[in-house]
Amino acid sequence: MSAARARSAVLEREIRENPGRFRVLTGDRPTGRLHLGHYFGTLHNRLRLQRLGVEMFVLIAEYQVLTDRDAADDPAGHVEELMLDHLAVGMDPARTTIFTHSAVPALNQLLLPFLSLVSVAELGRNPTVKDEIAHARQSSVSGLMFTYPAHQAADILSCKADLVPVGQDQLPHLELTRTIARRFNDRYGAGSPVLPRPDALLSDAPLLLGTDGTKMSKSRGNAVALAAGPDETARLIKAARTDAERHIAYDPAGRPEVSSLLLLAALCQGRTPQEVAAEIGSAGAAALKRVVVEAVNEHLAPIRARRREYARDRGLLRRILREGNERATAVADDTLAEVRVAMKNHH
Amino acid sequence: MSAARARSAVLEREIRENPGRFRVLTGDRPTGRLHLGHYFGTLHNRLRLQRLGVEMFVLIAEYQVLTDRDAADDPAGHVEELMLDHLAVGMDPARTTIFTHSAVPALNQLLLPFLSLVSVAELGRNPTVKDEIAHARQSSVSGLMFTYPAHQAADILSCKADLVPVGQDQLPHLELTRTIARRFNDRYGAGSPVLPRPDALLSDAPLLLGTDGTKMSKSRGNAVALAAGPDETARLIKAARTDAERHIAYDPAGRPEVSSLLLLAALCQGRTPQEVAAEIGSAGAAALKRVVVEAVNEHLAPIRARRREYARDRGLLRRILREGNERATAVADDTLAEVRVAMKNHH
Repeated sequence: MSAARARSAVLEREIRENPGRFRVLTGDRPTGRLHLGHYFGTLHNRLRLQRLGVEMFVLIAEYQVLTDRDAADDPAGHVEELMLDHLAVGMDPARTTIFTHSAVPALNQLLLPFLSLVSVAELGRNPTVKDEIAHARQSSVSGLMFTYPAHQAADILSCKADLVPVGQDQLPHLELTRTIARRFNDRYGAGSPVLPRPDALLSDAPLLLGTDGTKMSKSRGNAVALAAGPDETARLIKAARTDAERHIAYDPAGRPEVSSLLLLAALCQGRTPQEVAAEIGSAGAAALKRVVVEAVNEHLAPIRARRREYARDRGLLRRILREGNERATAVADDTLAEVRVAMKNHH
Repeated sequence: MSAARARSAVLEREIRENPGRFRVLTGDRPTGRLHLGHYFGTLHNRLRLQRLGVEMFVLIAEYQVLTDRDAADDPAGHVEELMLDHLAVGMDPARTTIFTHSAVPALNQLLLPFLSLVSVAELGRNPTVKDEIAHARQSSVSGLMFTYPAHQAADILSCKADLVPVGQDQLPHLELTRTIARRFNDRYGAGSPVLPRPDALLSDAPLLLGTDGTKMSKSRGNAVALAAGPDETARLIKAARTDAERHIAYDPAGRPEVSSLLLLAALCQGRTPQEVAAEIGSAGAAALKRVVVEAVNEHLAPIRARRREYARDRGLLRRILREGNERATAVADDTLAEVRVAMKNHH
């Protein structure tokens, strides 16, 4: 077990004992509707933390999709879809603060002092930035992408979050935020830390494959959106790639596509994939798919109903976002004020 | 004559004909008291533009000295010194908006969309950034320094300045601001430009050397501060390096130190250095220095008196800065709102 994993286990125990002690920052880039991979990968965990009584801040990071052509076409629409997905699964605006980058000036202002605390070399070493540089569709990486790790530190530290749920691959990200907090406290703290050093809360996303057997991704058209209807869901799952063996068994290494479908049904039904497989036995892939379609549609039915309800009330959505933005702004204003006092940057 | 110089000549004519058409953004990093080099190099030009009736915004760029150890010790004090120097020479807070980076959140927020419009390669090519990288006292350049050209674009475009007074060496800087404005308008303008493309107003700073014959610079202790008293002024100028020739003549190439002193006296007296030299004739360096001390002290006397007056009234200084910040914030808020509407980044 890695040090980060051991630390996360300790934190999970502390959360159960005293959830009111913690504040979590989490969020997404608004690039479209969330799918089942997001749902079981991150939304579920957010919901779990909310239910435990942890204070949650959910950021809709629209300033990180400015250069994404798809998202830039209808940014307000993308923000709304992301809100609907969160509200539909049960995130409660009375307990969880949903907010957008552009509505919290103090968060963005923190980027300036934080940029002064990291070197160009450190920004360039960040794995996500490196990855984006390697995979950039544009011929060159933008200054916004390059400074993304410092902006993320502003996201996290502006609301003084203690915990950030991350996957294994995002650990280095959080490390730079911790570095910035530490350097700020060392330089300006005068003995008492101004900024908390947030902990990573490692969470394992179940490995769900897309219907074509590759990584689930909206842009590949191989994912069931949370917002999809029962018919679209059935159509997508029935077209999913499987194998020719009639006997259905859970074997992620040997039979990844069949196993992913089993896992999906199991997650929806709160069972193990082995239990689902045993029930199907040798009835073949068609029977498996019928089970999966039914499990997904049954699990998503109340979520879809809630989504439709919220979608009918645009005024309510706007109010939820406005109130979330006001709350995030109040918290970030306080942090920026403390930061400026510590830096003697107030006149 | 370069294209930029020809354009500046045209602009100067237009300013005289219709000064109300123009808005100028100019400013300084608050690193200490200004000296005679700053005075004749930039303050004089600002005063001239103010007198012509051009609307001026003077930025005190404290976010660009965050990593400067000297300036970070007493940032508020440095801001005050810079204000005092401007007010002392005659900048009029009723006509000119003096403001600080940290007090204008909308300006800093503009950095985010602007960073999305420039590439890492473009930021790295900027001559000032390259220069800072080459001369950095720190082992590594900070993210703040690296993104400085985009932040400068936010300075200039947040108040929609049309004109930026620059020296020849700063032309590339402004070019990136123009590029950002153009790209923003191309991408989001939908036919009507949102951001002006500011023009450089080339101004030639007279070449005043420090008292040791090298570049005038506060950190070398070879400069007469505007705030210096008559005795300190006399002491510094009397210790200035000259040459052994008794006949005093204006010959910048052959006798740089003597010529710089002649130029300084001439600037103070509104004469030519040749006239000053003719008057001294063969009376030698000591006589030259007496002339210079008297010219400087006479010219600075009313400026110093005004500086002392303002320095006595800290409440007034704070009010001037507060009002300037309010004005700059109102203007930047409007610009940011327009930018967000253009980007459909408003919910």
